[in-house]
Amino acid sequence: MTRTLKLVIEYDGTDYLGWQIQARGPTVQGVLEEELAVITGERPRITASGRTDAGVHALNQVAHFKTENQIDVSSLQRALNSLLPPDIVIKKVVEVEDDFHARRNARGKIYVYQILNRPLRSPFHRKTAWHIPQKLDVEEMKKASHHLLGEHDFSSFRSVGSPTRSPVRKVHRAEWKKGRDGLLRFEIGATGFLKQMVRAIVGTLVEVGRGRMTADDLARILQSKDRREAGPTAPALGLFLKEVKY
Amino acid sequence: MTRTLKLVIEYDGTDYLGWQIQARGPTVQGVLEEELAVITGERPRITASGRTDAGVHALNQVAHFKTENQIDVSSLQRALNSLLPPDIVIKKVVEVEDDFHARRNARGKIYVYQILNRPLRSPFHRKTAWHIPQKLDVEEMKKASHHLLGEHDFSSFRSVGSPTRSPVRKVHRAEWKKGRDGLLRFEIGATGFLKQMVRAIVGTLVEVGRGRMTADDLARILQSKDRREAGPTAPALGLFLKEVKY
Repeated sequence: MTRTLKLVIEYDGTDYLGWQIQARGPTVQGVLEEELAVITGERPRITASGRTDAGVHALNQVAHFKTENQIDVSSLQRALNSLLPPDIVIKKVVEVEDDFHARRNARGKIYVYQILNRPLRSPFHRKTAWHIPQKLDVEEMKKASHHLLGEHDFSSFRSVGSPTRSPVRKVHRAEWKKGRDGLLRFEIGATGFLKQMVRAIVGTLVEVGRGRMTADDLARILQSKDRREAGPTAPALGLFLKEVKY
Repeated sequence: MTRTLKLVIEYDGTDYLGWQIQARGPTVQGVLEEELAVITGERPRITASGRTDAGVHALNQVAHFKTENQIDVSSLQRALNSLLPPDIVIKKVVEVEDDFHARRNARGKIYVYQILNRPLRSPFHRKTAWHIPQKLDVEEMKKASHHLLGEHDFSSFRSVGSPTRSPVRKVHRAEWKKGRDGLLRFEIGATGFLKQMVRAIVGTLVEVGRGRMTADDLARILQSKDRREAGPTAPALGLFLKEVKY
């Protein structure tokens, strides 16, 4: 009997070329499929809610695969975690309905982006936060973020040359929070995200924070539907896929 | 004119063989002295408040060195931080009195030890917290920690074969705090620490937490002055030198 299993996965993306299997180096999907093959004796293909780019992290990536193997879910979780490297951990294994599909059924996602905004860099945040020494105007960034809320064509914030499905998404959360010691956290929730959309948005909001753009420029950029109007793409290392909603 | 400069240094000790210069691999002192030589054109010898072992971290290690170079302290800090690798950062440079000595003048130190106490390991804490899947009895560990307070002969918690200066130290703080997601933090402050003393204490307190020893056993172990009575040495990766007092 074929079962469909859903995985919830946390990973430090620093040492991976992203989620999706590639010939030129290690990927999260590649490592997972390899260990799943060892345990199940099959060669399962894992499908995630979406790819994460090289260096991007995940707190709760969701993926599914099909197997004939009848191993119980908690044994599978333990076996996987004992085989996987320390930068990947399986937080949950759940048996789901046959028609569950991690990507197609995803109704929304939440991403978090971390910035370390203080003069000194940090040895302990160096792989998980974008270090910006110059003091950012967080109030202005918050104002700019309000323009993102609601349904918009996000063409201005999609990576150039990405496939042409609809660029319309609905953003329901776009919040900045100040943490300790100069840590800034941006949380953005939407029905879905275009390629490198969060990083393009953060890169643009940082331009606002630096005083190079105003909060209102963000509304104008959105309307332009032109990637060249927006700011640079923020580095991958600050980005975390926090949640996938079904 | 010879100046004495004091450095406050933060480092992620993961990739170093500890503080002190060694032939077999990179050390924090080695890297610092190399970059100081580049900047000052001299070969300054840096003296720290104490050595940290391989893999141990520091939030505020203090060190001093002497130089003829007249570079101002903020330029020196910027130059050092631009040359140093991302896992070491200079938090402060201060010109101090000629007779300042980072080790001899230290009146006390505070260390922090992090434990991740939950079934699942964590990709993001894997280099900074000791993962203990089994639920620890933190209340019993707190009780045991009270026995450490005050002036004691800490021979039971010193690394075997360490030099024979006085093993008497005064502990003024020994506190456990629960953080988020299973993080436990032990903060211990004393007039000074013997070699691997914090790690031997934590290893022993974890035995208490596991139910293999009682809180009162700790008092007995202290009195025995015998390292073999105490628990195993906790791994280096959870340990942080947090503060040095002068």
